Amino acid sequence: MSEKILLGHGSGGRLMHRLVRETIAPVFEMRELSDSALLEVQCDGTLALTTDSYVVSPLFFPGGNIGDLAVCGTVNDLAVMGARPLYLTSGFILEEGLPLEVFQSVVASMARAARNAGVRIVAGDTKVVDRGKCDGIFINTAGVGCVAPGVRLGADRIHPGDRILVSGPLGTHGIAVMAERNGLSFQPAIESDTAPLNGLVEAMLSVSNSGIRIMRDPTRGGLVTTLKEIAEESGRRFEIRETQLPILPGVRGACELLGLDPLHVANEGVLAAIVSPEDSDNVLAAMKEHPLGKSSALIGEVKAEDDQKVVLRTPLGATRMLDMLTGDQLPRIC
Amino acid sequence: MSEKILLGHGSGGRLMHRLVRETIAPVFEMRELSDSALLEVQCDGTLALTTDSYVVSPLFFPGGNIGDLAVCGTVNDLAVMGARPLYLTSGFILEEGLPLEVFQSVVASMARAARNAGVRIVAGDTKVVDRGKCDGIFINTAGVGCVAPGVRLGADRIHPGDRILVSGPLGTHGIAVMAERNGLSFQPAIESDTAPLNGLVEAMLSVSNSGIRIMRDPTRGGLVTTLKEIAEESGRRFEIRETQLPILPGVRGACELLGLDPLHVANEGVLAAIVSPEDSDNVLAAMKEHPLGKSSALIGEVKAEDDQKVVLRTPLGATRMLDMLTGDQLPRIC
Repeated sequence: MSEKILLGHGSGGRLMHRLVRETIAPVFEMRELSDSALLEVQCDGTLALTTDSYVVSPLFFPGGNIGDLAVCGTVNDLAVMGARPLYLTSGFILEEGLPLEVFQSVVASMARAARNAGVRIVAGDTKVVDRGKCDGIFINTAGVGCVAPGVRLGADRIHPGDRILVSGPLGTHGIAVMAERNGLSFQPAIESDTAPLNGLVEAMLSVSNSGIRIMRDPTRGGLVTTLKEIAEESGRRFEIRETQLPILPGVRGACELLGLDPLHVANEGVLAAIVSPEDSDNVLAAMKEHPLGKSSALIGEVKAEDDQKVVLRTPLGATRMLDMLTGDQLPRIC
Repeated sequence: MSEKILLGHGSGGRLMHRLVRETIAPVFEMRELSDSALLEVQCDGTLALTTDSYVVSPLFFPGGNIGDLAVCGTVNDLAVMGARPLYLTSGFILEEGLPLEVFQSVVASMARAARNAGVRIVAGDTKVVDRGKCDGIFINTAGVGCVAPGVRLGADRIHPGDRILVSGPLGTHGIAVMAERNGLSFQPAIESDTAPLNGLVEAMLSVSNSGIRIMRDPTRGGLVTTLKEIAEESGRRFEIRETQLPILPGVRGACELLGLDPLHVANEGVLAAIVSPEDSDNVLAAMKEHPLGKSSALIGEVKAEDDQKVVLRTPLGATRMLDMLTGDQLPRIC
C-alpha cells in the first residue's frame, strides 16, 4: 500500500520532521527546517506583501494543479502591484489519508513554478486535519516583493481617455477547472493559463513607467469584477468593446454549455492594465512580444463619466451594463 | 435566522466584497480592500518572514480562540527569531454555513491580539469551501519582522555550560484545548496561555544581547520536541531537571487523565531560551519582571557530550532520555 498522510504528520513530532526534511525542504531547496526565514532583501524601493489561500477543486486540472496555482497566484498579486516578487511562504493544510505521492507531486509543481518565476520559497508550515475535515490539500502562499523607486500604480492615476489592455484570452483557467470538475472534455482541450506574470510586467514597465496607471490580474470574478473594482476606485466609467475581447472559441462554447459569462470567469495568467493613450501602443507591443502576452489586446477605454460603471459596447453599437458576479456559480476556482 | 457564510462569499464577486468591506477591513483598520499591501518598513537590520496555518479544534477554548492564536503564534515565531514583529497577513478558509457571528468574533479577536502585540494586519484573503470540506474556520497568518543589527541567534552559538530557561508553565495551551475537545472541565479552569511574546523578548534582549544564544517557542510537540530540535542542530546534549520544570498542578493532573506527557504538550505563550552562564541570572530576572514571564525558571543546562540527546534528571538522580512525540495523540492543537 502506498504511503499516506497521517494525523501525526501534523503533530510537531518525528513524523512531521521527517515529512519536512524528506518531502518539502529539499524540493524547495530550503537551507534548514525552519518555519521562519531571514531574508536577504535588496530593495531600495517599497516592500510589498500579499497572501492567498488556495482551495481549488479538483486539485489537478488541465494545465496545472493547486501547487503551481498557489505559486503563480501570489507571484501575480505582487507583479501587478509593480513589485518584483522575491520570497514566498508556503502553508499546507493536508487531509489525513492523502496519498503521499499526491502531496509530493504538488510540492514538485510548486518548486518548478517558483524556479520559473525566479522566486524562493523560504518558510513553510504543515498542518494535518482528520479525514473529511478538508479536501485533500489547501495551500496558503504569502509573498514579499520589491516595488522599484519611481513605480507608482494606483486608481487615482487614471484619466479619461486611458486605454484598457488585457494580456491574453479571458476565462481560460476557470473553464479548465469547471470542465474537469464536471467531467467535460473539449477538443482541443482547454488548459488553464496558470503562469507567472512578473516577466511580462517587467517588459511592460521597461517601455513605460508613468504611462501604466494600474494593473490587476482578473482571477475570481473575472475581468468584469476586476474592471468594476477599478472603476469604483477611480470614480470613472470604463467602456469595453465586445468585438475586441480575446476569448478562445472553446471557452465561449463551454460558457454557453455551463451557463456562464466568460467575463466572470477567472484567469490565472492574464492581466488587465490601464495605460495612458500616449503609451498604450508601446505597452501593447511590448506585451505582444512576450510569450505570455501574444494575444494581448486593446479592449476599451476610460470615459469621462463618473458613474463608476463598466459598459460593454456590442458590435451593433448598443451598450450593456456589466456588474460583478453576485451568485456562487464559480466556487473553488482557485 | 442569523446570517451564514455562503459559497458566494468566496467567489470574488459582490458578496465577497461586502464581507471584506463590512466584516474584515474595518476591524483590521485596513485602508483599502486589498489582498496586497505596500509596507512602510523601518528596518536597518535583517527582515524575517514566517508563516503558520491554524486548524485548532474546537475553534473556541478556555483562554482563547483560533483568531488570537493565529496572531500570537505568528508574532511569537518572529519574536523568538529576535525579530520585532511588524506586519501580518491573514488568509481565511471558511466553511459554507458558518454563522457570520462566529466569523465576526474570530476577526475581532485577531484585531485585539494584533493591537496587543503592536502589529498591523495589512493584507488578507478569504476563501469559502462547501459544507463538510473544512471545519468551520482555518486561518493562515504570515508575518514580517525586523531583526535589529547585532542580534544574532542560532544553534551554532550554543556552548557547554549554557543555561536552559523557560518563561512559564509548560503544556497549558494543549491541555486547555484537549480538555475542551473532550468535554472535561477542571477546577480551577485551565486556560490557554496564548499571548504575544514580543514584549518579553524585547525585555530579554535589552539585558543581554550576545548572551542569548537561541530562543524557541515550544508549540506543537511541546518543550521536549523544541529542545530535541535545538540539541540536534547544536550537536550537544541538553539536561533538564524534573524538579525545576514549571507545570501547573491542573495540567499535571489532566495529563495523567489523558495519558499525555506534559513535556510533549503545546504552549502558545511560553518560550525556551538558551543563555550563557554569565548572563543567565540577568536574563532570568528580566523575564520574571515581565507579566508574561513571572513563572520563568532555569530548568537545565547544555552538556559537553555531543550525542544530541535531551536527558531528564529525576529527583533521585536517575536520568531518562526524552524524545520527540512520535504518534498523533495531540492533533489539531493549533
